[in-house]
Amino acid sequence: MQLTVSLGERSYPIHIGQDLLLAKQTFSFLKGRKLCVVSNTTVADLYLAPLLAALPEEPSCTVILPDGEQYKTMHSLEQIFDQALESRLNRSSVMIALGGGVIGDMTGFAAACYQRGIDFVQVPTTLLSQVDSSVGGKTGINHPLGKNMIGAFHQPISVVIDTNTLRSLPDRELAAGLAEVIKYGLIADADFFTWLENNIERLNERDSEALSYSIKRSCEVKANVVAQDETEGGIRAILNLGHTFGHAIEAVQGYGKWLHGEAVAVGMLMAVELSHRLGWLDATVVGRTERLLRNAKLPVLAPADMTVQQFLSAMSLDKKNIHGKIRLVLLDKLGGALITEDVEPMLIEQVIDDHIAKPGNAC
Amino acid sequence: MQLTVSLGERSYPIHIGQDLLLAKQTFSFLKGRKLCVVSNTTVADLYLAPLLAALPEEPSCTVILPDGEQYKTMHSLEQIFDQALESRLNRSSVMIALGGGVIGDMTGFAAACYQRGIDFVQVPTTLLSQVDSSVGGKTGINHPLGKNMIGAFHQPISVVIDTNTLRSLPDRELAAGLAEVIKYGLIADADFFTWLENNIERLNERDSEALSYSIKRSCEVKANVVAQDETEGGIRAILNLGHTFGHAIEAVQGYGKWLHGEAVAVGMLMAVELSHRLGWLDATVVGRTERLLRNAKLPVLAPADMTVQQFLSAMSLDKKNIHGKIRLVLLDKLGGALITEDVEPMLIEQVIDDHIAKPGNAC
Repeated sequence: MQLTVSLGERSYPIHIGQDLLLAKQTFSFLKGRKLCVVSNTTVADLYLAPLLAALPEEPSCTVILPDGEQYKTMHSLEQIFDQALESRLNRSSVMIALGGGVIGDMTGFAAACYQRGIDFVQVPTTLLSQVDSSVGGKTGINHPLGKNMIGAFHQPISVVIDTNTLRSLPDRELAAGLAEVIKYGLIADADFFTWLENNIERLNERDSEALSYSIKRSCEVKANVVAQDETEGGIRAILNLGHTFGHAIEAVQGYGKWLHGEAVAVGMLMAVELSHRLGWLDATVVGRTERLLRNAKLPVLAPADMTVQQFLSAMSLDKKNIHGKIRLVLLDKLGGALITEDVEPMLIEQVIDDHIAKPGNAC
Repeated sequence: MQLTVSLGERSYPIHIGQDLLLAKQTFSFLKGRKLCVVSNTTVADLYLAPLLAALPEEPSCTVILPDGEQYKTMHSLEQIFDQALESRLNRSSVMIALGGGVIGDMTGFAAACYQRGIDFVQVPTTLLSQVDSSVGGKTGINHPLGKNMIGAFHQPISVVIDTNTLRSLPDRELAAGLAEVIKYGLIADADFFTWLENNIERLNERDSEALSYSIKRSCEVKANVVAQDETEGGIRAILNLGHTFGHAIEAVQGYGKWLHGEAVAVGMLMAVELSHRLGWLDATVVGRTERLLRNAKLPVLAPADMTVQQFLSAMSLDKKNIHGKIRLVLLDKLGGALITEDVEPMLIEQVIDDHIAKPGNAC
């Protein structure tokens, strides 16, 4: 299965399927080029050997970083640069990112800056990175004062998604990836949403065909949205459905305790419920969304120890900020999103309150 | 005086003149924007106060780095990021580079990466940076294993060149800048070369009008060449006239002992002489070039302690590399350059030998 992300000169293919890491022709386009593979300890243990076997050239360097968001730093970036220079990578060399979003973001950024920009290939090994980082060209690292504060827009020359890599993914991370997949159905494609309802068990069981289809459709939706708004000025914001609420959960709970996708799942349900209370969505859509999220093994309620006030503060909607309006992504139909600043704060508060777990009511 | 560097959406103006740092309207286009000024200790002592007086907003942060190429590092870059984040610069903020090439390259690269790219303005204060870094969009930092190895192409939104800043420039640095100015005449504009011959005294005396004209013409020639070859594949190489020979001098003497422009001056004379011996240039052009370089207070001979073999090694032309061909930029007329790989090594050796200072013959 293949799709093309259309960006003029910078267009590139996304290859999706089973056993791609086992097929010699997968990486034949790299023949004759000097390569540098970047991965982390966890992923390298599982997939570095198969990748090396599939590559047409032995890499000139292999950089294995520690696993975790806390290593998405300038220091890790420097390790990539050091090894790239020691291996004398040149302007026609290629960096290959083998891993999840952290590895993809860092490798892409290293490639963007190395000798003012060289090619890179993504081999994402988590569902989240497959449906999110594969499209959009965002690369970067964190800074102690903010996530993804240092980076570049740099498109890969190719993305290779082998669904076999999802077999080793922890259940919670699979579910967190499915939250983003469900998001694409909600914001842009009612038929895909229905397909997800009918195939959620196959996805949970990591059926390769079902995964491939859902990844392809997710990438298509994202590519379509990004193509309309490369510079992130407007419509691209609909990709953040549920994220404003979700970030509040992540921030208050401490990043890392809840996975991003888990927090987004709760946030999406809040956004759907809010859209319903505004009269834009049928109650059945709320029920269907909640059921699909539950079937994907995702939470649908915020932790019981959170307060509405904590949400409002994290969303910059607290009382100190009287004139504060908040931009929210909501749905005006299943498969259709809009951005609005005109929602009564009282209504937002009620919806949040109704989606915080109560004692005896934990999700 | 003003010219526009034409790069479609990324086109920008270069303003050149006396007293620009004293005029309120110079930076009026920055009104209402959050600013961050980056400079070094030497330049800040001289020009930070006037710049701050001219800016329409008080900068949110001012980063003063130590002065020198040895500080063009990841560490300095991090200092810019730290202060930018502490000052909460956002995507619509602007970085301003006040200084020579090192400050311009680092600030431009910081702006290219901060939140995946923000605007920046160059206020170059050396002749070299005014006629070289103002055009081309190259930004970056050094790595222990190579100069300018980490960087990005990022165009400024405006360049402001106040010729008053050249009054404080050490004589050697002025001359080194003039070497690059003379280069533009040699490779692209015989009339400009003649103008330089007639006005070299005014330039040495730092006459503002003469400096402004020579900076403008230099930037125009460079912009013209870059526009034909943004990706550095072909014709852009003519900007390296004299650089292959010159780099050998810098490398063997140790970087910093000879200024880049001084080494390039000797290298250009070698290239001109070589072009003459190939029958492409009149002997008068060789004489005129040598005279103009001398009048610009530039060296015309390599140091007496250098050997031909050292040149050949540094130029990868030594005996170990039998099939080694070297790409040289030569002239086929005054004001016209070409790139060739077809010059007899013997001829190159002779020209080098004739331009190494002999005892009793120091330049």
